[in-house]
Amino acid sequence: VSGGELARILAGPPPGVLPLMGGFPDVSTFAAGEIAELTAQVLRDEAAVALQYAPVSGVPAFREYLLDRQAHLQGRRPAPEELLVTSGGMECLTLAAQVLAQPGDTVLVEGPTYLGALLALQAHGVVAEAVPMDDDGLDVDALAQRLADGPRPAMVYVIPDGQNPTGRTLAGPRRQALVDVCREHGVLLVEDVAYRELVHDGEPLPSLWSLAPDGVLQAGTFSKVFTPGVRLGWAVGPADAIARLAEAKGTSDQCASALAQLLVTAYGRGGHFGTRLPDARALYARRWHAFDAALRDAMPDGVTWTVPTAGFFTWLTLPEGLDALALRDRAVEHGVAYVPGVAFHCDDGGTRDMRLSFSQLGEQDLARAAGLLADVVREAA
Amino acid sequence: VSGGELARILAGPPPGVLPLMGGFPDVSTFAAGEIAELTAQVLRDEAAVALQYAPVSGVPAFREYLLDRQAHLQGRRPAPEELLVTSGGMECLTLAAQVLAQPGDTVLVEGPTYLGALLALQAHGVVAEAVPMDDDGLDVDALAQRLADGPRPAMVYVIPDGQNPTGRTLAGPRRQALVDVCREHGVLLVEDVAYRELVHDGEPLPSLWSLAPDGVLQAGTFSKVFTPGVRLGWAVGPADAIARLAEAKGTSDQCASALAQLLVTAYGRGGHFGTRLPDARALYARRWHAFDAALRDAMPDGVTWTVPTAGFFTWLTLPEGLDALALRDRAVEHGVAYVPGVAFHCDDGGTRDMRLSFSQLGEQDLARAAGLLADVVREAA
Repeated sequence: VSGGELARILAGPPPGVLPLMGGFPDVSTFAAGEIAELTAQVLRDEAAVALQYAPVSGVPAFREYLLDRQAHLQGRRPAPEELLVTSGGMECLTLAAQVLAQPGDTVLVEGPTYLGALLALQAHGVVAEAVPMDDDGLDVDALAQRLADGPRPAMVYVIPDGQNPTGRTLAGPRRQALVDVCREHGVLLVEDVAYRELVHDGEPLPSLWSLAPDGVLQAGTFSKVFTPGVRLGWAVGPADAIARLAEAKGTSDQCASALAQLLVTAYGRGGHFGTRLPDARALYARRWHAFDAALRDAMPDGVTWTVPTAGFFTWLTLPEGLDALALRDRAVEHGVAYVPGVAFHCDDGGTRDMRLSFSQLGEQDLARAAGLLADVVREAA
Repeated sequence: VSGGELARILAGPPPGVLPLMGGFPDVSTFAAGEIAELTAQVLRDEAAVALQYAPVSGVPAFREYLLDRQAHLQGRRPAPEELLVTSGGMECLTLAAQVLAQPGDTVLVEGPTYLGALLALQAHGVVAEAVPMDDDGLDVDALAQRLADGPRPAMVYVIPDGQNPTGRTLAGPRRQALVDVCREHGVLLVEDVAYRELVHDGEPLPSLWSLAPDGVLQAGTFSKVFTPGVRLGWAVGPADAIARLAEAKGTSDQCASALAQLLVTAYGRGGHFGTRLPDARALYARRWHAFDAALRDAMPDGVTWTVPTAGFFTWLTLPEGLDALALRDRAVEHGVAYVPGVAFHCDDGGTRDMRLSFSQLGEQDLARAAGLLADVVREAA
């Protein structure tokens, strides 16, 4: 797994190339006007807090808001010592790799899984080992078998909703089974809920943390529902794990932005998530349906892809004999960019796969991108 | 060295206790009104960049600004590959400990030095070893001796201006000698310039990076001159070191806040540093003179302290037989809080010392704090 791939994603494709790459939200879903107004309000009323260093664990007002928000959205209010404010979801994963595992330890992950998580584990000398998935998400029976047969891992890392990179959502019945099997083996379950609030239609399934708050560390982010332009997220989980993450955060960036913390507090307390998020969910749902329809029109037989019900991604599999990494440059020449599947695998999987993000483009551009990609596949086949 | 000390500093003292603790800037030196206006402007004109993920190395417009700023303030424009945007100065130190040293390596530091740096080294299994200082900063002859006699360290870490925690500034003639001796031994010099732009009077001395850009990694921060309420800084240095830091940053927080990057760009390009900083420098100079006068009035014989010409700190030494750590609780009971000197030492030094920050209190409160502290010392003596 290469850090160059992540830098490439964050840098975006060359000008004129349609991006199906990053887990980038559409900026039009964010409330630029409200953010400007609330920034002015926070700087007028609370400058002494907003413009100063914050406690490592977070600004008190924001912590209160987050505790209330967990209760409202996930049905349980954490104890204060079960919460840490982070500088985005990625930071929680990195801190966990740093202090909740030892170099040489194994962490079980979904195969495939989030590239950033693989890089964070690798950076701290932790070995990722994949457990297979199917259309209902992680294969929990396979996990149970692995836990029964193999050496005990330091953690199990999963992305239950609109998984990165496959777009899959862990089926309801598997959730309780997953927390049960991890509890049985005394293994910490790390749950990444980056796309949980962007279920396209209806309500999200129960979070793993809500099912087992004593055994699940949840990494959350405001990057998809507020903006990645401020770096802000949360970790909730067992108090001892949170305390260790907090100690490590003191030397990663000391504290998350106090201004951003007060801004999200004002935004959330003002009810803006409630008014904004339904539109964002509907936008991503429309884009998915447009993209899906265009892929069906354009793609040759033998190409398959997943059907997300949350988040930004579908996972497309090429026919036997084609290599998604090898086709990448040709696709960029044709005017469309994706991330090859191998980037999300800690083993040799993913060669025929690609992650396609439908979050950044309008419906017409998605149709164009699907057509261009189909041309590349057809030429190569 | 304990992470609890850092959390204690960031949390601040109990209500009603005068803080002489953190390297906290005075929020009144920041331009809350301009920040609100510029945020609105950035969100109106550049929302698509401000509210999105940024490249790991930084937003292009901010990078251009930083390159120009280095040229203007330090006399040399870095090459683009010599610059990385960071989420504050601390992040650069942590990334350096992570990727420019191996666990078990030694890093030479000033004795005493910045607590956060000691914690970052410790978190990555790197051993800090102190080189003595005197009133002119790091004893460069002692460093040269150590480099000649001992095993080669991975880095040498120094804070040349208004050093944390002593307030000392590395004398001009020592600067060239320092970069020369590090170059001679092929050792990377890491320069922390947190307080460089807060020289109380006159111009700062040449930065170490400006003297040896191929051999010095400079960690800079906007926390003292803009606000710590956004987490933003820079690293400039040899291209190979910067590339390795950038790769590691991809998995620490992926990128610094894009909104903050555009905000500081607009602030800097608008000339606000030039109009604001002279007042900030004058304020800290006044506070230092008031505090110094009050200490002279109040402190019993045998108590000594350093004379800063930049930054926020003086380093006070108690008479023989007194223990600054042991007196801490009594001081808080008396209504004044400081950081015991042992927190800044990687060896058994600092027991009679305390770091006193004069940045957060007005002149009357500083006088009160000096009096309260003198009472504690007198009672204990």
